[in-house]
Amino acid sequence: MCQSLPPPTEDVPLTVIGVVRSAHTEPENTPIQAALNRAGRGTIEIAGPYREGLAGLDGFGYAWLLTWLHRPGDRKDTGDRKEHGAREGRAGRGGLPPLRQVPFLLRRQQRAMGIFATRGPRRVNPIGLSLIQLLEVTPEAVLFAGVDVIDGTPVIDLKPYVTRFDRPPGDPPYGWFDEVTLDEGSTPAGLTRPEPPA
Amino acid sequence: MCQSLPPPTEDVPLTVIGVVRSAHTEPENTPIQAALNRAGRGTIEIAGPYREGLAGLDGFGYAWLLTWLHRPGDRKDTGDRKEHGAREGRAGRGGLPPLRQVPFLLRRQQRAMGIFATRGPRRVNPIGLSLIQLLEVTPEAVLFAGVDVIDGTPVIDLKPYVTRFDRPPGDPPYGWFDEVTLDEGSTPAGLTRPEPPA
Repeated sequence: MCQSLPPPTEDVPLTVIGVVRSAHTEPENTPIQAALNRAGRGTIEIAGPYREGLAGLDGFGYAWLLTWLHRPGDRKDTGDRKEHGAREGRAGRGGLPPLRQVPFLLRRQQRAMGIFATRGPRRVNPIGLSLIQLLEVTPEAVLFAGVDVIDGTPVIDLKPYVTRFDRPPGDPPYGWFDEVTLDEGSTPAGLTRPEPPA
Repeated sequence: MCQSLPPPTEDVPLTVIGVVRSAHTEPENTPIQAALNRAGRGTIEIAGPYREGLAGLDGFGYAWLLTWLHRPGDRKDTGDRKEHGAREGRAGRGGLPPLRQVPFLLRRQQRAMGIFATRGPRRVNPIGLSLIQLLEVTPEAVLFAGVDVIDGTPVIDLKPYVTRFDRPPGDPPYGWFDEVTLDEGSTPAGLTRPEPPA
């Protein structure tokens, strides 16, 4: 192990299996995390060829919703200050996002972090990971609580939440998140407003 | 919301950002979940263009490792009994996996589940989600504990584990996992052996 072989760099294909229906249409006004919008409800519409894969999901309380957050134009450096590492676009791909970005939660402080230390949507692979509460599983759709994506977001996978697999022991350190306030309903737009006077 | 528009079905591209180095080479003899192999150690080698994205990750105790589990031939129906829904391959893609499969943990019972109710690797999009414990973050690599992938597995994302986002309240129901034994170090091969006599 730990040989210094070059890692693979080729692209691999993804298939969209469904779409999220939510009340949100603008990312700037959409809660930044499902856990901060537990009251928000949405629906995952699964495309016909994949519906049989839902069998058995109704026995679970929570699931991981994996989404594809890329929108045209997202991969350009959209200009948050203190960002570094914007890359030249590859032909037809729109280029890479900056590798250091100011997370929504650090907008007021304008502190940049490496993208693998953030949960932000502008990533090398813009895959969203949302912990959703399952309300109802029908033969063609999943009704859920905990919405942090806009209407029309493509779905690429659903996995059941299993406590034994997904809950680390104890209360592990969580880096810079320890220094920010995680308010219910936080949105990118809300996090740019000045702090109210004390 | 909840309009019945057809979901998008086009493919989207993924970029490999690095590779996992682990002591395992055969999926059948690799622990099925990181949480069941906490003592196992591995390394994520991040490719040069993406290393700057690691900045700040060292402050976290755990992270989500997203991997691409596709290997040539995986998308064929490899013949577990009671599987249904194997699809015709699309040109150049190798086809879809069965939408109902017998999970490793239900091999002895030969019970099939929809793939979105399993954590198995043969998925429409074979994305692995592993909760890893961060041991050390260097400028070009991540040393971690909790290994459930083979050596050479392509990495597509890393996200920090944040308790507030990733831990549901209480002890939610976890479907058919409630009926199986989750033994430390369980492997697919081990789960096909007959139960030892009582």
